[in-house]
Amino acid sequence: MIKFADRMGQLKGSEVRELMALTAKPDIISFAGGMPAPELFPVEQVLEATLAVLKEHGQEALQYSTTEGIPKLREQIAKRMEEKNNIHTDADHILMTSGSQEGLIFSAQAFLNKGDVVLMESPSYLGAINAFKTCEPTFIDIPTDKEGMLIDELEKVLQTTENVKMIYVIPDFQNPSGKTWSLERRKQFMEVVNKYEIPVIEDNPYGDLRYEGEALPALKSLDTKGLVVYLGTFSKILAPGFRLGWVCADDPILAKYNFLKQAFSLQTPTISMLIASKWMELYDLNAHVDKIRDCYGKRKNIMIDIMEKELPACCKFTDPEGGLFTWIELPEGIDAKELAMKCLEEKVAFVTGGGFYPNGGHENTLRLNYSNMPEEKITEGMKKLCKIITQFCEEKT
Amino acid sequence: MIKFADRMGQLKGSEVRELMALTAKPDIISFAGGMPAPELFPVEQVLEATLAVLKEHGQEALQYSTTEGIPKLREQIAKRMEEKNNIHTDADHILMTSGSQEGLIFSAQAFLNKGDVVLMESPSYLGAINAFKTCEPTFIDIPTDKEGMLIDELEKVLQTTENVKMIYVIPDFQNPSGKTWSLERRKQFMEVVNKYEIPVIEDNPYGDLRYEGEALPALKSLDTKGLVVYLGTFSKILAPGFRLGWVCADDPILAKYNFLKQAFSLQTPTISMLIASKWMELYDLNAHVDKIRDCYGKRKNIMIDIMEKELPACCKFTDPEGGLFTWIELPEGIDAKELAMKCLEEKVAFVTGGGFYPNGGHENTLRLNYSNMPEEKITEGMKKLCKIITQFCEEKT
Repeated sequence: MIKFADRMGQLKGSEVRELMALTAKPDIISFAGGMPAPELFPVEQVLEATLAVLKEHGQEALQYSTTEGIPKLREQIAKRMEEKNNIHTDADHILMTSGSQEGLIFSAQAFLNKGDVVLMESPSYLGAINAFKTCEPTFIDIPTDKEGMLIDELEKVLQTTENVKMIYVIPDFQNPSGKTWSLERRKQFMEVVNKYEIPVIEDNPYGDLRYEGEALPALKSLDTKGLVVYLGTFSKILAPGFRLGWVCADDPILAKYNFLKQAFSLQTPTISMLIASKWMELYDLNAHVDKIRDCYGKRKNIMIDIMEKELPACCKFTDPEGGLFTWIELPEGIDAKELAMKCLEEKVAFVTGGGFYPNGGHENTLRLNYSNMPEEKITEGMKKLCKIITQFCEEKT
Repeated sequence: MIKFADRMGQLKGSEVRELMALTAKPDIISFAGGMPAPELFPVEQVLEATLAVLKEHGQEALQYSTTEGIPKLREQIAKRMEEKNNIHTDADHILMTSGSQEGLIFSAQAFLNKGDVVLMESPSYLGAINAFKTCEPTFIDIPTDKEGMLIDELEKVLQTTENVKMIYVIPDFQNPSGKTWSLERRKQFMEVVNKYEIPVIEDNPYGDLRYEGEALPALKSLDTKGLVVYLGTFSKILAPGFRLGWVCADDPILAKYNFLKQAFSLQTPTISMLIASKWMELYDLNAHVDKIRDCYGKRKNIMIDIMEKELPACCKFTDPEGGLFTWIELPEGIDAKELAMKCLEEKVAFVTGGGFYPNGGHENTLRLNYSNMPEEKITEGMKKLCKIITQFCEEKT
């Protein structure tokens, strides 16, 4: 009889990825996934960069390379983190990963024994919860307001809880809530973290995609004790199909992540790394990011405008300053899953919010993505969605 | 204070990968790694395939795709496994992974609780031992003779040991020993496995690279109870730089691996999968494999010929029928690490064998790779190595 390990009892398929399969049909207006707009991918430029790589370094591109990744790309990343995020680092403190997801699994594996406690925002990223579950931890989610994690609540938990081994946060344009932490909150958070000396995983896949307001410092740039592990990715600023992410951390932690990289996948694909590096050399990443910001910013505004006009007052939602997502809280007692089924009949899809809470509940929430649909589809889909929500609110309350 | 998880105490960097960094200097004759010959990579063909992919499916290539991988490539793999390995399978039973290494980590995670027992050949693949250690199992290595794992020894352990949760084997051209299991041994093994119903991980990265003798059936082709998980890879037949491997398993097991894939890396790189698929469509993989076999077979023969002539009679070695490696057992008491240091002074590198035994010992063994060096370098390096070994044997015995 085949016996699976205990951890497998906790793992299940991501509802988002399963829903994405359902919603891949062309007649569905989908706010469900977290996919970038494919029409913005710089296909021609990637083709040129790939030609250059295979002509200049063909054998190298197809061969094994080092665990940490090719030096030049890590230098380019370190330089950009210095410029954009004010994080003082260098290539030696960057480890390339298979998207941010691999950074999440390494974080869990590096810090969490079975039963150890991991803290996160409430709600938090489904893919992180899923990765962490492989280590069978206890999750405690800390309440947030519109400025970020509530520091008093965080400290209360730290004072009264043993075996807190890491804190996972997304301070910029959080997935799923769309919230961004204020500067003051970031500083208070780092004070508490420094006091208790708990490692922090700062996941920042969307930081470049700010549509309004001022850029705020990454937690890693405020880190004086080497406690913050910063996760970056090319998925939202170049293309997710390469599976290129990175970890930036101080030596003692990065050494452990390096061992895990060897054990888990040996190395990140050489050819992906060389193409991304060549593309950054030949073209202007910042100009490309500006294009993405312009497009997504408009899409976001269309979505928010319609909600402001057509959503009943009993519903709350975020107006995000950047990123890919907004978040709706329906009145208590309205089941977002029932709403989702009704919307699917009308060819509109979204992700229900319950899965983003590691300990369940909150079935009256939902996440909307605006990066993957053109403006007219957003208009059409949001009008339908708001109408159905209005009906639900009238029937149920 | 940062506290790492218990599992991190067991993990360390692979000596092979660390040694590879040392031996990357151009003046070193290295038998250390397990790298393919870069001059055989079909760079021009990959370039053509990449152009076709980016021109025909540019946006798709750069976008997210499904957890299991693109259907067409999985169909191509399933068809080839049917033709080459007599394994009756289909695309639905293939999950793409980031090289075989990800198949190894998924195997550990799917089956092993802390303290559970994993059985393997003695010696076995370092990268597998490393992956399995993340689940903190107990390793029991089963002795082998030249026909493979000793079935009596295996059954003895199964009769007397609780919590044996999986058996890891490389029946074809094993890494590191170069041994290949006989047909009879494969059948006996499957009888025992069926009796005890223990999942088997059959790692087959080298199966295509046979230089002499007849092809033997994969264990998976003899599997009547859905117990065998087959791991394949493009690393040795196309190029490792794509990081493309796959798992073939029956439904209940594959479903668990699929959950792990989501948690660990979401998906395998879309662009790598599409390029490999297009390359298989445009070009003849079997003809390419024939070229590799021809080249490596010659290199192997040169290495073996020199050992037959110049190695002292007190040393044993394998004459492999395929794959990338041969293996030397020095007389007891001779330390391969000391030998390695001496050889490095003479600009010849290899990997010491101790690390391939999960429970240590066997410091008198070493592994030699012949795929990555041209013939004249193999001749030069092997003559030096045999001379130094001869001196060691004279001094130490």
